Amino acid sequence: MQVVIWNEYRHERDDEEVRRIYPHGIHGAIQRGLAAHGIEAQTATLDEPENGLPAARLERTDVLFWWGHIAHAEVADDVVDRVQRRVLDGMGLVVLHSGHHSRIFRRLMGTSCNLAWRETPGGERERLWVVDPAHAICAGLAAHVELPASEMYGEPFDVPPPDELVLISWFQGGEVFRSGCCYRRGRGRIFYLGPGHEAFPIYESPSILQILANAARWAAAPHGGGSRLQVINRTEPLEPLAGAPRPGFLHEQAT
Amino acid sequence: MQVVIWNEYRHERDDEEVRRIYPHGIHGAIQRGLAAHGIEAQTATLDEPENGLPAARLERTDVLFWWGHIAHAEVADDVVDRVQRRVLDGMGLVVLHSGHHSRIFRRLMGTSCNLAWRETPGGERERLWVVDPAHAICAGLAAHVELPASEMYGEPFDVPPPDELVLISWFQGGEVFRSGCCYRRGRGRIFYLGPGHEAFPIYESPSILQILANAARWAAAPHGGGSRLQVINRTEPLEPLAGAPRPGFLHEQAT
Amino acid sequence: MQVVIWNEYRHERDDEEVRRIYPHGIHGAIQRGLAAHGIEAQTATLDEPENGLPAARLERTDVLFWWGHIAHAEVADDVVDRVQRRVLDGMGLVVLHSGHHSRIFRRLMGTSCNLAWRETPGGERERLWVVDPAHAICAGLAAHVELPASEMYGEPFDVPPPDELVLISWFQGGEVFRSGCCYRRGRGRIFYLGPGHEAFPIYESPSILQILANAARWAAAPHGGGSRLQVINRTEPLEPLAGAPRPGFLHEQAT
Amino acid sequence: MQVVIWNEYRHERDDEEVRRIYPHGIHGAIQRGLAAHGIEAQTATLDEPENGLPAARLERTDVLFWWGHIAHAEVADDVVDRVQRRVLDGMGLVVLHSGHHSRIFRRLMGTSCNLAWRETPGGERERLWVVDPAHAICAGLAAHVELPASEMYGEPFDVPPPDELVLISWFQGGEVFRSGCCYRRGRGRIFYLGPGHEAFPIYESPSILQILANAARWAAAPHGGGSRLQVINRTEPLEPLAGAPRPGFLHEQAT
Repeated sequence: MQVVIWNEYRHERDDEEVRRIYPHGIHGAIQRGLAAHGIEAQTATLDEPENGLPAARLERTDVLFWWGHIAHAEVADDVVDRVQRRVLDGMGLVVLHSGHHSRIFRRLMGTSCNLAWRETPGGERERLWVVDPAHAICAGLAAHVELPASEMYGEPFDVPPPDELVLISWFQGGEVFRSGCCYRRGRGRIFYLGPGHEAFPIYESPSILQILANAARWAAAPHGGGSRLQVINRTEPLEPLAGAPRPGFLHEQAT
Repeated sequence: MQVVIWNEYRHERDDEEVRRIYPHGIHGAIQRGLAAHGIEAQTATLDEPENGLPAARLERTDVLFWWGHIAHAEVADDVVDRVQRRVLDGMGLVVLHSGHHSRIFRRLMGTSCNLAWRETPGGERERLWVVDPAHAICAGLAAHVELPASEMYGEPFDVPPPDELVLISWFQGGEVFRSGCCYRRGRGRIFYLGPGHEAFPIYESPSILQILANAARWAAAPHGGGSRLQVINRTEPLEPLAGAPRPGFLHEQAT
Repeated sequence: MQVVIWNEYRHERDDEEVRRIYPHGIHGAIQRGLAAHGIEAQTATLDEPENGLPAARLERTDVLFWWGHIAHAEVADDVVDRVQRRVLDGMGLVVLHSGHHSRIFRRLMGTSCNLAWRETPGGERERLWVVDPAHAICAGLAAHVELPASEMYGEPFDVPPPDELVLISWFQGGEVFRSGCCYRRGRGRIFYLGPGHEAFPIYESPSILQILANAARWAAAPHGGGSRLQVINRTEPLEPLAGAPRPGFLHEQAT
Repeated sequence: MQVVIWNEYRHERDDEEVRRIYPHGIHGAIQRGLAAHGIEAQTATLDEPENGLPAARLERTDVLFWWGHIAHAEVADDVVDRVQRRVLDGMGLVVLHSGHHSRIFRRLMGTSCNLAWRETPGGERERLWVVDPAHAICAGLAAHVELPASEMYGEPFDVPPPDELVLISWFQGGEVFRSGCCYRRGRGRIFYLGPGHEAFPIYESPSILQILANAARWAAAPHGGGSRLQVINRTEPLEPLAGAPRPGFLHEQAT
């Protein structure tokens, strides 16, 4: 399983407070966390050539993690295009926190992906409730996951109805959020996870890392081939067409 | 209810055979068909200024029908943008036949919308089976709708799993197709209907017109407001945040 | 639209505290609340003959509301049978609060309908968030509904994944709950609403009554006929079967 | 993985024609087919004590296959109860063909599970189209599966909307059918497969056996525990309830 963790990697370089929390970048923290679950992952960042995601690399990638926030617009058109194509071809995609507004997530969802949010100096408690305990992404989790300090992301969340809703968050300030959403698109699987603000060490949480490891395995499952669902011109019918009426005549019969 | 029927309107002008079937254009046939159901609709076509869909007009539109085939690429970027925005704001969208590959449908679905297809000289029988007889879009239909001559559209159809699947087509040549698919996106409702090839008088079929009239009413239902789901910065919590731990400390507790 | 509000009607007779809150029974409060929305409803209670739901009455009912708690087991087998049948025939069903454990709801869901709960002397705040603002059941609601005192119902809620999830509740004590769930079953529509404990005047809340009025209209929508989806023996094929191979021979061909 | 194949096992004993097709019973054919995929399965039949499914055995079962037709009513109440309980606890269930009308499937679906059908002397062609090629149940399949002789099962099929629809059947006689339907219920997974009439050697088809092997693995996936979703009385709130207003007072605030 080839996993690549993509990170915008700006906050950690530009903001001392964030750097203290994530000295090796958010991607580094996730990489270490996945390793503890036996998943070797590589990393890629926005400011590398081709945004760190040249075509040949994406071709070998089974699951791509995506964290971005302030520089969504800097991701190149053709990178967005090829990531979308790879997801439809079967690559898994795990979108994290503010990645809800990334170009690739909006592209794949077709909606604004808007939500309500609140950042408070010390953060607030977030509690993720497992609403589908039997789901592979919830394996090994307790009934809920506690985050003592988090940024609030709340409803309404303008995404398509999830194909599978596995986590719902409670916030101390009074809101709720569909924080664990699964989608099937083409041959690919997409998972969105709500928490992950750069100002809190969310990706040090053992339960969050458990979710991410589960999500990597869930999203990377072999998906019946490797090529995108194609346009197929089936010129030869499977059954004889004799007896088909001529066009221009329309008759309806109903039972 | 303000309904606008958008048509590419090229086949009918360039191809004598098609013109004979749709002398007033596909949009004209649908317009007449909806009128028989008490729905007054206007029309718009690709070659009008702003592709017939200036912003002010879209603002007043409750439901937009969309038929396109050979000129998808000619629809302007900002027209696609504003139709998407209006759908997310609550405008209904009914996408017809080869509109599966339109820029607006692909934009809203996030997938390739590829499918299998076959065009044969005289066409072949298509039979649409009602799989959700209680759905508003199926009101007044018999158990199935017969089209004596149609173009084959078949699986796999690369769309997100429909939020509601109401029609499945049987084809004489041996294929099946999810030909009636409902989606909720933002505040809007989207319906895709499979049959509608320009070489067959599909839009003269009373049952197809019944479906279209039902779809117009279903998609135009008032959707709780009028503005898109916004980014909301809820700076003030609804509940007191006293007692929230400081960031940098992470503790988990599970039951 | 014929609406019948069914109530177990035991707490209000046996418990003075509850009687003070609902002097005319929970059914009476809902009846009055719906009337204010222009919906004339009748009532039925457990201790009436045939549990208040003789077959002839159910036949005329478009939407049935259901509130029960301590006497689920006293609802007669044939009443459960015929309510299920009527729902599959197209009657709407609105299940309230502790009705999650009613025989009819468990019958229609197929699951245990278990959940987590907590009753505290003064109750706790519940806040219902609208997660699908465009849904008919949320018409006229603000972004959220506040209930200052409620019983906690929490996840995991052992129901099938809702066909449409429209409300999620936040509880002061730290839980979340899928408190507004829509289901399509047969020709019928089912809505489950979480809040409604007998010790709190939930059914005096204008917003809750708005939800119930919306739900009545949503669930009562004409559903394409009136009879249940039948077993149909389609002895006559719609297409010729000539050329079908004989049984005992099996050949597969794939493309 | 403990797999048990349950079969009514009446046709094969009472009807010489069926016995010729399935000399070791339908359960025997499936057992042999799964073995070729490396899955060791046991069998159980209706006329064994406790219908072959004593509680201790079910406790050890990860996936149960179910084939029944003319003797659904002979399955004992407590067997149906305990199979349902085990599914909600996480046991997989694969329901085959006429098992759509089994007590256990109707129990778990909550609907009539009625459908349209036609039996013809020589049968008719059925072609199962893969509509979700990336699904685990479709692994290794071609674009479609051909059955030269089958019994027609057609729409409308009165089941809840499938959580995942993976196969749709085309019939020579003109019908379609949602023939591969996935459901999540409690901790369990349920798969329904349409074809499997006793008069045709459906369970000798390599592709059908591939589907069944895939379904066994999909349904048996470990589902996060082992016990059913319980009623939980969470007497202790996770958050302080101080400041909760007293009952009897109701105030609403909306934004």
